[in-house]
Amino acid sequence: MAKSDRIPRDRDNDHTREMASQRADFVKTMTGASLDSVASYTIDPATTHGNIENFVGTAQVPIGLAGPLTMVGEHAKGDFYIPLATSEGTLVASYSRGMRVISECGGARCTVVKHSMQRAPVFLFDNALEAREFGKWLDEHIDALRGVVRASVDVPELIEIEKYAAAKMLYTRFCYTTGDAAGQNMTGKATLYACEWIRANHPAKPRYILSGNIDTDKKHSQMNMIQTRGKRVIAEFVLKRDVAKELLRIEPEWLYRFRQIADIGTQLSGAAYGGAHSANGIAAMFIATGQDAANVSESHAGMNYIELLDNGDLYWSTTLPALICATYGGGTGLPTQRECLEMMDCYGTGKANKFAEIIAAVVLAGDVSLSSAILAHEWVSSHEQMGRNR
Amino acid sequence: MAKSDRIPRDRDNDHTREMASQRADFVKTMTGASLDSVASYTIDPATTHGNIENFVGTAQVPIGLAGPLTMVGEHAKGDFYIPLATSEGTLVASYSRGMRVISECGGARCTVVKHSMQRAPVFLFDNALEAREFGKWLDEHIDALRGVVRASVDVPELIEIEKYAAAKMLYTRFCYTTGDAAGQNMTGKATLYACEWIRANHPAKPRYILSGNIDTDKKHSQMNMIQTRGKRVIAEFVLKRDVAKELLRIEPEWLYRFRQIADIGTQLSGAAYGGAHSANGIAAMFIATGQDAANVSESHAGMNYIELLDNGDLYWSTTLPALICATYGGGTGLPTQRECLEMMDCYGTGKANKFAEIIAAVVLAGDVSLSSAILAHEWVSSHEQMGRNR
Amino acid sequence: MAKSDRIPRDRDNDHTREMASQRADFVKTMTGASLDSVASYTIDPATTHGNIENFVGTAQVPIGLAGPLTMVGEHAKGDFYIPLATSEGTLVASYSRGMRVISECGGARCTVVKHSMQRAPVFLFDNALEAREFGKWLDEHIDALRGVVRASVDVPELIEIEKYAAAKMLYTRFCYTTGDAAGQNMTGKATLYACEWIRANHPAKPRYILSGNIDTDKKHSQMNMIQTRGKRVIAEFVLKRDVAKELLRIEPEWLYRFRQIADIGTQLSGAAYGGAHSANGIAAMFIATGQDAANVSESHAGMNYIELLDNGDLYWSTTLPALICATYGGGTGLPTQRECLEMMDCYGTGKANKFAEIIAAVVLAGDVSLSSAILAHEWVSSHEQMGRNR
Amino acid sequence: MAKSDRIPRDRDNDHTREMASQRADFVKTMTGASLDSVASYTIDPATTHGNIENFVGTAQVPIGLAGPLTMVGEHAKGDFYIPLATSEGTLVASYSRGMRVISECGGARCTVVKHSMQRAPVFLFDNALEAREFGKWLDEHIDALRGVVRASVDVPELIEIEKYAAAKMLYTRFCYTTGDAAGQNMTGKATLYACEWIRANHPAKPRYILSGNIDTDKKHSQMNMIQTRGKRVIAEFVLKRDVAKELLRIEPEWLYRFRQIADIGTQLSGAAYGGAHSANGIAAMFIATGQDAANVSESHAGMNYIELLDNGDLYWSTTLPALICATYGGGTGLPTQRECLEMMDCYGTGKANKFAEIIAAVVLAGDVSLSSAILAHEWVSSHEQMGRNR
Repeated sequence: MAKSDRIPRDRDNDHTREMASQRADFVKTMTGASLDSVASYTIDPATTHGNIENFVGTAQVPIGLAGPLTMVGEHAKGDFYIPLATSEGTLVASYSRGMRVISECGGARCTVVKHSMQRAPVFLFDNALEAREFGKWLDEHIDALRGVVRASVDVPELIEIEKYAAAKMLYTRFCYTTGDAAGQNMTGKATLYACEWIRANHPAKPRYILSGNIDTDKKHSQMNMIQTRGKRVIAEFVLKRDVAKELLRIEPEWLYRFRQIADIGTQLSGAAYGGAHSANGIAAMFIATGQDAANVSESHAGMNYIELLDNGDLYWSTTLPALICATYGGGTGLPTQRECLEMMDCYGTGKANKFAEIIAAVVLAGDVSLSSAILAHEWVSSHEQMGRNR
Repeated sequence: MAKSDRIPRDRDNDHTREMASQRADFVKTMTGASLDSVASYTIDPATTHGNIENFVGTAQVPIGLAGPLTMVGEHAKGDFYIPLATSEGTLVASYSRGMRVISECGGARCTVVKHSMQRAPVFLFDNALEAREFGKWLDEHIDALRGVVRASVDVPELIEIEKYAAAKMLYTRFCYTTGDAAGQNMTGKATLYACEWIRANHPAKPRYILSGNIDTDKKHSQMNMIQTRGKRVIAEFVLKRDVAKELLRIEPEWLYRFRQIADIGTQLSGAAYGGAHSANGIAAMFIATGQDAANVSESHAGMNYIELLDNGDLYWSTTLPALICATYGGGTGLPTQRECLEMMDCYGTGKANKFAEIIAAVVLAGDVSLSSAILAHEWVSSHEQMGRNR
Repeated sequence: MAKSDRIPRDRDNDHTREMASQRADFVKTMTGASLDSVASYTIDPATTHGNIENFVGTAQVPIGLAGPLTMVGEHAKGDFYIPLATSEGTLVASYSRGMRVISECGGARCTVVKHSMQRAPVFLFDNALEAREFGKWLDEHIDALRGVVRASVDVPELIEIEKYAAAKMLYTRFCYTTGDAAGQNMTGKATLYACEWIRANHPAKPRYILSGNIDTDKKHSQMNMIQTRGKRVIAEFVLKRDVAKELLRIEPEWLYRFRQIADIGTQLSGAAYGGAHSANGIAAMFIATGQDAANVSESHAGMNYIELLDNGDLYWSTTLPALICATYGGGTGLPTQRECLEMMDCYGTGKANKFAEIIAAVVLAGDVSLSSAILAHEWVSSHEQMGRNR
Repeated sequence: MAKSDRIPRDRDNDHTREMASQRADFVKTMTGASLDSVASYTIDPATTHGNIENFVGTAQVPIGLAGPLTMVGEHAKGDFYIPLATSEGTLVASYSRGMRVISECGGARCTVVKHSMQRAPVFLFDNALEAREFGKWLDEHIDALRGVVRASVDVPELIEIEKYAAAKMLYTRFCYTTGDAAGQNMTGKATLYACEWIRANHPAKPRYILSGNIDTDKKHSQMNMIQTRGKRVIAEFVLKRDVAKELLRIEPEWLYRFRQIADIGTQLSGAAYGGAHSANGIAAMFIATGQDAANVSESHAGMNYIELLDNGDLYWSTTLPALICATYGGGTGLPTQRECLEMMDCYGTGKANKFAEIIAAVVLAGDVSLSSAILAHEWVSSHEQMGRNR
């Protein structure tokens, strides 16, 4: 390949309009395609420093407003308007309907029940016995390791080290709290320090690989479902019978029945999410607010649980065991993304639990709306009217 | 809630700047937060019609250029530059490194091995015997149902109806080809027509629900892994020993060993993807090109397979059994998104397989780069230098 | 190791009392342990020919009688007494209670919905494209392959060949009906013939391995859950409200609620069976009737589905997607085992579906009894009274 | 149903020959089938007290001797002869071959890395917040609960209480050590005491169900794979190149390659065991030694890990994360079963780890033999010669 085929690079990766423009021209030269719209960004490219390399412009993803969504969470209280960045027609309308239903019923009660971010080094030994004994050594040195982490990084706190023996390896998960950041990178750094301390202090100086694939970073896993990755959040509300009939045109009994039919489908197919759909709302919020959209893979896992109450109302909940979201760091400080966080008062430190609660409530709203639409057969026709239906 | 709390709506959902502006003002009034950046979009709001409701502006997601990536696929041939929309620092650099490695080794050979999009109605009966007999009836009427589909929708062709009995229900998957569209909505519509035809023609007029949760739409599942959803694509290349040493600073033997250690981690954790990470590249390409980012949940599933060849080189492949992507419909026609497809000559009809091959090759590039970085311990330090490491 | 450490072998593996006795003496000499009870078998050792090597005696596993169990299946009709071989105290009593409940409610309606036994060769190619094309070739030659199977083995009929591409391999499942035999060995033989025919007739003479681990023989898998292995059987009955109260001391509503709580547990833990327990009844019947107890691993998978009917009764079903059982071949002809089949009129050809129906009904009975006991807190106390509670 | 259709019961369930005989006669009367062989048991029926109800006789399952198997475990050291109760022809021969291979290579090194038996009550609350707070309360009262357990049962020690929040429930796993017993029943009793103490002492007097289906008793689950159920045991040995060639007629390189092809099959199918087969050996040993054969469902899960060493030898291991076995209680004291334990010096207290090591080594032997046979195509022909091949 000729040297000239290389994408133009600036020495300091400093994200100027000039370099971006050079790259757009380069693409035009090499492929004949114009990037005029991509290049018509209105943000200051300097704001993207640390978020992107070889910056050439922006994707402009339409944002629709949904809501208001009434929250009665621990951290999120009151009415919220929700920015959803998507190109899927009917999504905003459908979520809005769900939000209205929840709000009319008194709002979504949300609870963050656990917070734990991991990096999962695997330690290599000559046999299973050495690996097992190393696990005991880790237990004995947990306080020292907590100190190492505290001394080497600012935010993460080492909670515990989970240990899973297999063959002659010890697979571990170093579990941290990470404040208001998602924390994958900072925990990677903390774990590297910890591992190097282990190598320096354990007599066998064990070899390790910084990830043995059980983190499981950017991928769904039953491990996440069981042990939590990021935040484990539960959203719940009680669907009143008359609201169900009026706004969803459905009897609570059918929603209850459908849940069980869907649960069999979930078990049959080995699906990561038992409800109607979590990924739509999560992806749309993630893009709008500067989250890592790759984390949709972990975050979309979960379960719906519904209970028909004695008075004929319907308890409805969604449990998200691996929601990864941040109000600080990553893409949260980018201009449009920050605004979308700010409109929910979720930007900056001290807001992560609040934000997680809102996301979970949005997912619940989506399930309420789509589940009802599937049952009421509105589903296809709503796509007909609003979207392009392709 | 007061009437005035409602988001301003235009009667025809016709996406004017004026309405968007009213909504931004409304947010300002209700929350105090400014949406100035969100409102500084440069696309024509009319282009978003059918993709969004309650349009208020756009998320501007930074796009970095990666590549060139040499492709020796069935449909994608030659060098490609890849637009990646992300806010995760180091992602573009890391994928670029992987692309360079693949290109130096002769390029990625990619193959679409299956294409099948589903809608999965569940039919309800009084007992298991009736459900079983209904399955036979479906088999006998498959040609008629193909005709119903052909007569009612333009693109989808009904390939087959998979049948899974459980309790007194028959869970089905109606499997379609959908041309260059992702096709979830068009297959939903086709299946609704088919189901209504069934109700009209089967003596029992069976009740059904249009989704029994085994589609499994917008969620990962073992069903997808086994039976395919969207496109099943395989990317492969042979990593030359000297390229591995020079560009990745790693011996092929270690990559081979690591694969097996990671496979145990995959089995242990029940992870949806066996390689290092597919979701990063998929999410970044999906956002850049107007795909549905919620489909990251299905699309990120898969497996890495590596083989040390007799000459010391390394065969490396990734298999994506449920890649959902389109070059037509959905968000592909939005201004910046269309440009990103066009720079890969992947916009419009007849391009879907080509595009799927490129995505799979990008995933492979990401696995090559990250797997090597994990082994070579560059991983943390690269985040230190390039990203904000939060 | 000295030659004399070897277990005494007879030249023709002909299973005489003399050789068995020599082996028992050998054990006594080598370990000091007496095998007097093991050697006190009353069956003719010649009957074990083909079932065992190095025969030394028998395990005497207690058999308890359960029932009567009223069956209203397609094949099994009337009242049955069920032989359960187990050493788990309370098992027979608990299953008997469940059988009584089902019988009082009119009996178990059972349906075999699918029958398919597999051997799953994987074919190895140089790249994914070759593997895909080979899949097409297989489709084109399916009739020829059916003929090869028909010509080489007596019982198995080749139904179809499922194809799953991954990397440069084509994983297949050759699916057969196997009459009244379980059929793992005969399908292995048939598949070997088919594979050798493929090698002789396909231009590339592809290398293959007779099992690529997706059979999935003697192991649970989601593949089995989805695609069936052995027989897919459903047992169902309607629990009458008054019977529930009288015999189970429980309200149907609580059973209904518990099902949904348990379904969340199933999804959370990634469990192979959603009901209370299938393995107990299956293992006990398998040992009594000469089935392969290793197949408990596949056979125990499944789902419970419950529905509260309008009249307050409870529809209850269990679905077993991978029940492997035989009335012919394997251990079914051994003396005590044959008798246990005969007492259910399930020995010999033409009885496999009937037998499968009975097993599924027994599983259902076990779920009814244990689920109720868990809810009614009788569970622990019943072990206290009847079993050793260890 | 007429009263006379009931199986004859003795008042005290005291297991006399007379009652057994009455039952056999009853079966003859009701079904016409003779149970002469079943009734020809030679054990004293009184020995089955606590293991069975409605005793009618025994299943006589053929036992074959395998071995010797050289063990270099922590607890099991020296040469062992292994009793395998099965009716699957070639099983004993195949395992014996594997044992010979392992023994010739110096023996199996085995390690019990964890021991934990569970009962998993689920606690029901009005909302997720209450459930979360209850989890904290449990943590604060863990010492008190340990005391309650210690005071109420003899053997089990409460190690920890795992907590998994979902919806408004708190799913827990009470984890115990259980000495040399399998311990499902004793931990059930201990957990009932603990739960009743909780109800008496927690202000909300929370309702609970003694099993929320995440134990996951008598069923495979990813939970077991991750968190262990029973004993987590690893067996390993180094296959010498010349032994592989001589005894297995195979190159180590092919075994290494096959492992990776099989791992892809495992991920593709979602299989519970990654190796060739664990259930065969486990089931045969379980029946011979009085284990609960239903536990094959949990115990057969696991992973094979193979590594080609620099000297051309092959490290081979199997990891069993949920092996449930006992040397005391349950069926271990039955006459033939006890003898089979005694011939391995595994009967009674203080032997459970030793016994677990031997089982894991047997599983490894089976994998070595069958994996090689599959590759060398001996598989089918060995069934032809030795077994009935049905």
